[in-house]
Amino acid sequence: MKILISTILVLSICSPLIAAAPCDSLKSLNLPNTRVTAATVVKAGSSPAAQALMGKLVAVASGSMYSQFKIAKAVEVLPLPSGTSAKQAASCFVNPLTALSMVEVMRREGHKALVHTAAASNLGQMLNKICLKDGVSLISIVRNAEQASILKKDGAKIVLDSSSPRFMPELIEAVSATEATLAFDAIGGGMTASNILTAMEAAAAARLTAYSRYGSSTFKQVYIYGMLDTSKTELTRSYGLSWSVSGWLLTPFLQKIGMADVNRLRQRVVSELTTTFASHYTKEISLRDVATVEVARAYNRRATGEKFLIVPTL
Amino acid sequence: MKILISTILVLSICSPLIAAAPCDSLKSLNLPNTRVTAATVVKAGSSPAAQALMGKLVAVASGSMYSQFKIAKAVEVLPLPSGTSAKQAASCFVNPLTALSMVEVMRREGHKALVHTAAASNLGQMLNKICLKDGVSLISIVRNAEQASILKKDGAKIVLDSSSPRFMPELIEAVSATEATLAFDAIGGGMTASNILTAMEAAAAARLTAYSRYGSSTFKQVYIYGMLDTSKTELTRSYGLSWSVSGWLLTPFLQKIGMADVNRLRQRVVSELTTTFASHYTKEISLRDVATVEVARAYNRRATGEKFLIVPTL
Repeated sequence: MKILISTILVLSICSPLIAAAPCDSLKSLNLPNTRVTAATVVKAGSSPAAQALMGKLVAVASGSMYSQFKIAKAVEVLPLPSGTSAKQAASCFVNPLTALSMVEVMRREGHKALVHTAAASNLGQMLNKICLKDGVSLISIVRNAEQASILKKDGAKIVLDSSSPRFMPELIEAVSATEATLAFDAIGGGMTASNILTAMEAAAAARLTAYSRYGSSTFKQVYIYGMLDTSKTELTRSYGLSWSVSGWLLTPFLQKIGMADVNRLRQRVVSELTTTFASHYTKEISLRDVATVEVARAYNRRATGEKFLIVPTL
Repeated sequence: MKILISTILVLSICSPLIAAAPCDSLKSLNLPNTRVTAATVVKAGSSPAAQALMGKLVAVASGSMYSQFKIAKAVEVLPLPSGTSAKQAASCFVNPLTALSMVEVMRREGHKALVHTAAASNLGQMLNKICLKDGVSLISIVRNAEQASILKKDGAKIVLDSSSPRFMPELIEAVSATEATLAFDAIGGGMTASNILTAMEAAAAARLTAYSRYGSSTFKQVYIYGMLDTSKTELTRSYGLSWSVSGWLLTPFLQKIGMADVNRLRQRVVSELTTTFASHYTKEISLRDVATVEVARAYNRRATGEKFLIVPTL
C-alpha cells in the first residue's frame, strides 16, 4: 500500500485541546467523541500532497489525540494559517462545517430560506453569521429571551422565542415572508418539527389559488440533526402530503458532495476562523474535571450557548 | 387555444360508476372525490391523438361524472380493450397506479424490497400480485389473522400480523432476510412508521462490522400515503440518523416521472385489468345510499378489504 503510506504525515500535537459540545450525547463519565486540535507536520510521506504540508500548522479531527505525536493521512488534515492557536483550531471542524452545510443543503435542494432551532447554540451563532454574510434569510428559533438577545447582538434579523404565546402566528408570518421550506432541528423530540411544518403549510396554503384536499404541493423538509429533547418526535401530519422529516448527519453529507466541494467549505472555515467561526467557551476544564460528577452534569445539561474546552495540560 | 380544443373528446358515459374506497378521507355525507368510469368517445377534435380515440372505450377520472356526456382532453383518458365493463373501469386509475408506483419508487430510489401496511386492502392485494409477478420481495403487514388469510390465499410470501406478540422479532427477521429499506404506510398515526424503521435499523446494525454511535449508514425510508389512524405519528428516532419519514401522493409522483413512464404504467394497468388489477367490491350502493347515515358510517369505517361501488342507476 505504498500510495497510502506516501500520503501519511507525522504530526506534533501543539496542545491536545478538545471542544466538548454540551449538545453531544456524552455518557456522563466518558470523554467526548470528537477530538480536534492543531498540530505541526514534522514528517511527511513522499507524495507531493504530503510534502506540501511539511512544517505547516494543520487541524486534525481524530481519535488517539492525547499524545505528543500522531500519524494522519494528508487528506484528513486542514492546513491553517501560521499563528492559529490550538484553542482556535479546536472548534474548526464539526460546527463550522455543519453550519456551512446547512446553507449548502438549502441551495442544492432548491429552498429559499432556512429555519433553525436551538438557534443560539455555538453552531446557530455561526449559521447566523454565514446567513448575514451570504444574504440568506434565516429564521432562528430559541427557547427564551436571553438566547434571543445573544443572536440579536450579532445582528440576527428574525429571532423567534418558542416560549412566547405569539410563537405560532409569528412563525407563520416569518415563514410566509421568507418562503422558508427547509428547517434544521437540533431538538428532535416533541412537536418542534411538526409545528414548523404546520407553519410552512399555512404559508403555502395562503398562496394557493384553489383548494386541494391533499394540501399544498409545496415540498417542506425538516432535518433533525440533534436530540436536545430525547422524547418522541410527534407529527400531526396536518400539512398535506408534500413533507419530509429526516435524520441528518454531517459526515454522509460531505461524502455525498465529494472532495472538491468539501475542500471549498474547509477553505472558507480557515479563512473565517477568527470571525464567522470563532467559538466562545463557557469554561476551560482539565481531563480530571471531565471525570467529576459536577462538571459532567454541567456539560451534559445541553444548555444552549454553553461550550466547554478540555485542556489536558491544566 | 386551438391546440387544446383539437385534442378534446366528447365522451358518452357508459354508466357513471364510482369506486368509493373506504380509506378515502370522505366527509360523511359527501360524495367521494375520485370519480372514475368508462366512456365511449363519440366526438373527437382534429388532432391525430384525439382522432385515434374516436369510437374507443376509455377510462376517465374527473369531476362532473354524473352526466350522460362529458368533455375531456385526449391526454386525460385511458383507452381500454373493447368489452371492458364500466365496473372494471371504475377502479383502473388510483389503486393500480399507486401500487405500480410503489414498486417504481423502490427501483428508482435504490431499494431492494418493500414493506406495506394495511396490506390486505384492495391496493395491498394488487401490490402483492405485482410483487409476485415481478419477483419483488414484499413484507405485508396486516392487523389480524383474517386479513392475513386474504393475502395468503393470493400466494403472499411474507405476511405479518401486527397484533401478534411476536410481531417485532418477526418484522426484524423479515427485514433482515429481504434487506427491505423502504415502506409504504397507509396507517399514518401511532408507532407504525417508527416500528418499521426500528426493525430496519436492527437488521442494518446486525450487518455492521464496527460500532457507530450514529447508527448504521443504511438509508431507511417510510412513505406515509394514508391516514387510517388519524392520531399523531410518533417517532422514537432510535434508528441512527439515516432515515426519512415523508408524505407520499400519487399525482406529484406521476408528474415527476413524466408522461412516457406514466403511459408505461397505464398500459400495464390496461393489459392486466381483469387479473392483477381486478377489484372486488363489498357492496354496490346507490347515490341515495351514499347520503344515508348507516351506509356512510360503513364506508367511513376504513375497514381493510372493504370497498363500495356507487351505481347511480340503482
